[in-house]
Amino acid sequence: MTDPILEARKETAEAWFRELQARLTAELNAIEAEAPADLYPGEPQRFELTDWTRAEGGGGTMGMLRGRVFEKAGVHVSVVHGTFTPEMARTMPGADVDPRFFATGVSVIVHPKNPRMPTAHMNTRFICTTEAWFGGGGDLTPLLPDQRREDAPDTVAFHAAMKRACDAHDNGLGWYATYKQECDDYFWLPHRKEPRGTGGIFYDRHRSGDADVDFAFTQDVGRAFLEAYPAICRGRLHEPWTDAERLQQRIQRGRYVEFNLLYDRGTVFGLKTGGNIESILSSMPPDVAWP
Amino acid sequence: MTDPILEARKETAEAWFRELQARLTAELNAIEAEAPADLYPGEPQRFELTDWTRAEGGGGTMGMLRGRVFEKAGVHVSVVHGTFTPEMARTMPGADVDPRFFATGVSVIVHPKNPRMPTAHMNTRFICTTEAWFGGGGDLTPLLPDQRREDAPDTVAFHAAMKRACDAHDNGLGWYATYKQECDDYFWLPHRKEPRGTGGIFYDRHRSGDADVDFAFTQDVGRAFLEAYPAICRGRLHEPWTDAERLQQRIQRGRYVEFNLLYDRGTVFGLKTGGNIESILSSMPPDVAWP
Repeated sequence: MTDPILEARKETAEAWFRELQARLTAELNAIEAEAPADLYPGEPQRFELTDWTRAEGGGGTMGMLRGRVFEKAGVHVSVVHGTFTPEMARTMPGADVDPRFFATGVSVIVHPKNPRMPTAHMNTRFICTTEAWFGGGGDLTPLLPDQRREDAPDTVAFHAAMKRACDAHDNGLGWYATYKQECDDYFWLPHRKEPRGTGGIFYDRHRSGDADVDFAFTQDVGRAFLEAYPAICRGRLHEPWTDAERLQQRIQRGRYVEFNLLYDRGTVFGLKTGGNIESILSSMPPDVAWP
Repeated sequence: MTDPILEARKETAEAWFRELQARLTAELNAIEAEAPADLYPGEPQRFELTDWTRAEGGGGTMGMLRGRVFEKAGVHVSVVHGTFTPEMARTMPGADVDPRFFATGVSVIVHPKNPRMPTAHMNTRFICTTEAWFGGGGDLTPLLPDQRREDAPDTVAFHAAMKRACDAHDNGLGWYATYKQECDDYFWLPHRKEPRGTGGIFYDRHRSGDADVDFAFTQDVGRAFLEAYPAICRGRLHEPWTDAERLQQRIQRGRYVEFNLLYDRGTVFGLKTGGNIESILSSMPPDVAWP
């Protein structure tokens, strides 16, 4: 059953997700430190890392920051293994043969205080049953109406970074167009007929046939996020905001809550099957309005 | 098809729900007016009533108050008719024979500003297919830990009023015990293993066999709410609160949001089938925290 090449891939993937967690938390800690005191009162804060273990096998490291720039941010790594329930096994490639699984990934969600600084989400993962694949993506959620357009500069920069990650590995197959569309389809609030944000890329089960290419692609999605999002934050860091913009942000965050609790497969599945509430709900915005 | 007795029942039910809307909004308007200015700055506000119509048939009157005591409150009446979708018809008594329906009801949700004043919900309705039944209930959601116990005084008073409404009509059949249990079962957050509030009564499809008794019972549930809840609010009206209690309230309101978006059948069904967002989401608390 043990395949030394696959075992090495699992270790390499975990090591990468841990490295990405370290680099991302370091970048966000740096922005906390360099922010101007007049706009962001209080002391700069840093990520707190907490290891956790899971009775069924494995565990992870939660990283949480509650700061003056980043009102609430989570950067989590998990490395878990176990056995899928029969219901779950039916929906997972290769799990019909043997329901045991291994999964490792990093997930990131950042809610800045400044309404002019967009919220962002990134998640990449490596999942093994009797088959193995990568999944993930990154997307941007600007909160103010004039930033919620496809041609707004933060969104243009974010998409350009994600496109470069796709183009570097897709051998001309147009992964960016496909995964951008999947992102738009997924992060959609049908009851409001509006998108959660301005998109990015989303790929649920990526298997090109070459696992080395797929891992390199997933690494580059992480690097693209690391390159694009802190730069977007720094570009907005010195912009003051109005009370009206803060209220607009809190209302738009309510739509984010509606998406996560009504439609997000990970959140709904996790909560309804006894997942770790603290980790799952760390994605919820800290301060929300439905006026 | 037209049964003059049934048509008269529909009209009487609608008239009652409209009367209850008028009496409840008047009571809450009165509390807005009599509140002490030092605790509740700003002008007292009043309910704004807005009529709406529904393309498929019928309409209603939304009542919304955004006040100094009642931070956000909705008291809505609807009187609608139409044809159930095949999926819906399968789940509704009498709709397999003929999918046409008539429904009228009143729904109430109140989010006070003062964290020491509990949130409350009440909804009663009359639904007709080829059969006819009443549904509804009322429940209390205190936000502070010491009020979220069965023996806390507001909860005792609220339950006593609901029990009187049941006992007056149940002919010794123990409706209160049954409907209290249904309420506890329904308003439960499995992912947190905690109740939404401290309960009340909940009855989904009430048909005792005597429609006059059932209507009188539903009227008394409304009267019980009208008697109990404003008295609870007045009893807390002069109590000052701390910032810590306000934060606790906003966090507990987050659990209310989680319940409504993850589990509440009416909310989830309404949002996923193209209902009136404004009316459905008027139940969302105005100011919420997931710190």
